[in-house]
Amino acid sequence: MQRADGLKAVVFDVFGTCVDWRGGVAREVALAAARLRVAVDACSFADAWRGRYQPSMEEVRSGRRPWTVLDSLHRESLDALLPKFGLGALDDAARDDLNRAWHRLDPWPDAVEGLTRLKRRYVIGTMSNGNVALLVNMARRAGLPWDVILGAETSRAYKPLPAAYLNACAMLGLAPGEVMLAAAHEDDLRAAAAVGLRTGFVARPLEYGGGRRADDGTRGAWDVVAADFLDLAARLGA
Amino acid sequence: MQRADGLKAVVFDVFGTCVDWRGGVAREVALAAARLRVAVDACSFADAWRGRYQPSMEEVRSGRRPWTVLDSLHRESLDALLPKFGLGALDDAARDDLNRAWHRLDPWPDAVEGLTRLKRRYVIGTMSNGNVALLVNMARRAGLPWDVILGAETSRAYKPLPAAYLNACAMLGLAPGEVMLAAAHEDDLRAAAAVGLRTGFVARPLEYGGGRRADDGTRGAWDVVAADFLDLAARLGA
Repeated sequence: MQRADGLKAVVFDVFGTCVDWRGGVAREVALAAARLRVAVDACSFADAWRGRYQPSMEEVRSGRRPWTVLDSLHRESLDALLPKFGLGALDDAARDDLNRAWHRLDPWPDAVEGLTRLKRRYVIGTMSNGNVALLVNMARRAGLPWDVILGAETSRAYKPLPAAYLNACAMLGLAPGEVMLAAAHEDDLRAAAAVGLRTGFVARPLEYGGGRRADDGTRGAWDVVAADFLDLAARLGA
Repeated sequence: MQRADGLKAVVFDVFGTCVDWRGGVAREVALAAARLRVAVDACSFADAWRGRYQPSMEEVRSGRRPWTVLDSLHRESLDALLPKFGLGALDDAARDDLNRAWHRLDPWPDAVEGLTRLKRRYVIGTMSNGNVALLVNMARRAGLPWDVILGAETSRAYKPLPAAYLNACAMLGLAPGEVMLAAAHEDDLRAAAAVGLRTGFVARPLEYGGGRRADDGTRGAWDVVAADFLDLAARLGA
């Protein structure tokens, strides 16, 4: 099909696009709180943790702090949040374990089958702000069949900095126009398009649990707009 | 089993250890020469090409030239060798294609099954001087089921520099002692051991076609010495 002409690789945003971070984090927060016999709104905790995601990366993007992987940023945010939710008694080992909830997120129901189909025709990889260890552990647990783990750590730049996308294309030996970013977030797609990548919007209406409205694909002229990964595969002829 | 205690990941040298570079390169050189109707000793060409491998990387390791991926080093060596073998008439497109013979090497017969077994118990990855695109293309063609592509390009350092091994362990979020390098080359194992990785020697007696003697695993006290990847999997309890 026309939109797939010359396309060689599809790289994916991960948190929210491939996996349900809110449900997975809330599940593990609830377990940790139950062990402490503390009542907590686990979804609010997940939202608050994710709320510190962009500000923490901005410290690195801006150059105010040296390169730091997401596992470390997540842990700092966790340490800051626990007392606010009455969970300050959580010990170091339990914090380490809870921080790895981000390694144990479940894929959306269509993700593995859609990626498996896309992999037959295209190189598929991550294009995530998650660090390599996080993405490898997640993929092994969830069965995400990546050809290659790329993203902020391999590029040493957090999205949406241009280097995050461009270094990944260079590592694939491809021109940006031969690579599509698939993401549920229109800001991410806009930044990728600005440096020449193709764009595939995938709707994930439940990313925020249905409360906060998720992007719907109408804020830009994306090359492909898909309902899920199976639809994306079909639209890309895979 | 004792030697696998605490082992989390096995990373692999690729050229010679996972795939038969000499046979694969010779096959494609022979095809290119036949198209030009030139008689050539394709195995000698493969040996000569590989002979320029270490010297070309040494220019980068020494700092005499900036970071350069292996595809580019291979291409420079190819351009230098073709006239010496009467193949100077090969045009640019044919040279590009022949250079990608390194992306199309066949795995040793036990490689895919052995890696598949090891993957059940350990994170498996590359630890190769090949660039990411080369390794991804090779894995897709050969069915090598890597969890992660690591090596010189992701570390920005060619083996046997310590940073090549240590940056890969850091990306895996593991201590060097939790990672084993599997390789058919004892120099590679010695360099990995010197920075704390565990070592698995895998015999590849036919790497050089049986002429030049391959390493036999007797030049160091390797943690594991295996006959092939199936034997390595068995010895690591996978």
